[in-house]
Amino acid sequence: MKRTTSAGILSIAALAVAALAGAGLNGAAEAQDKGPFANQIAARHGIMLYRAMNIGALGAMAKGEVAYDAAAAQKAADNLAAAAHLDDSMLWPEGSDNGAHAGTIALPALWADKAGFDAKYADFRAATEAMQGAAGQGLEALQAEMGKLGPTCGACHKAYRAPTN
Amino acid sequence: MKRTTSAGILSIAALAVAALAGAGLNGAAEAQDKGPFANQIAARHGIMLYRAMNIGALGAMAKGEVAYDAAAAQKAADNLAAAAHLDDSMLWPEGSDNGAHAGTIALPALWADKAGFDAKYADFRAATEAMQGAAGQGLEALQAEMGKLGPTCGACHKAYRAPTN
Repeated sequence: MKRTTSAGILSIAALAVAALAGAGLNGAAEAQDKGPFANQIAARHGIMLYRAMNIGALGAMAKGEVAYDAAAAQKAADNLAAAAHLDDSMLWPEGSDNGAHAGTIALPALWADKAGFDAKYADFRAATEAMQGAAGQGLEALQAEMGKLGPTCGACHKAYRAPTN
Repeated sequence: MKRTTSAGILSIAALAVAALAGAGLNGAAEAQDKGPFANQIAARHGIMLYRAMNIGALGAMAKGEVAYDAAAAQKAADNLAAAAHLDDSMLWPEGSDNGAHAGTIALPALWADKAGFDAKYADFRAATEAMQGAAGQGLEALQAEMGKLGPTCGACHKAYRAPTN
């Protein structure tokens, strides 16, 4: 009979964590170069990019740049809602603003007005749910929800993000 | 009676997309600097980091570095499973390997063995579901699943990722 000892389990767990640490790719190097929150900043940036890609797919249809495709629109909306609802609370530690770190354009205002940030974030999440219900229901439904979703992105960016150019 | 015209809706949609384009932060600049897939690479890197953070929280408990906390363990496992199940298929375009791009350590082998990659990815996703069922059920349950989850990370990293040091 083969048994896994407790020590064996811990050893496996340690290996697993060591393997995972590498998931940060050059995360450790980044952290050294860019400060203690480099991984949090890179993670939230990556998740924002993922959302932007999926909104981009919906927006291209809304604007008529790409032919409306109900299945593709639904998929993009599902992806967006899933990414919007990720618990990213650990990715916004106090002190990870653009005053302290070169790798972010998050303004200190985000932390100074955390309640406002949370409220605007909730609006965005709700808008992605509405989009999820509409995107597959026809171009006009998608366009109408895009007109509501966009401002929820802008509300946060305008208040808590440095201008991008 | 106030009506939103079709042109008005499209204008709002265009604004929304413009606002969102900025979600890439300096994504456009990155894309210019690092090649056409800089955003995909940054997005998948960020999502990997998010997963790693949550596995790290579970691993710290598994190793006894942090006291076991059922609620915290469950939250980390929920986060991990949600991030593992994101449809990230658009983040791995052909040609976004480390032979073509400096910003990634994904090996060409990933694309040469796409079926293998998909199978290993499915194993990882299944392991995160098992962890989700176990993490809140006690330290030993968490440790046992960590011993199964870790190798699913390692299987992909060993086959499709350049060594990190």
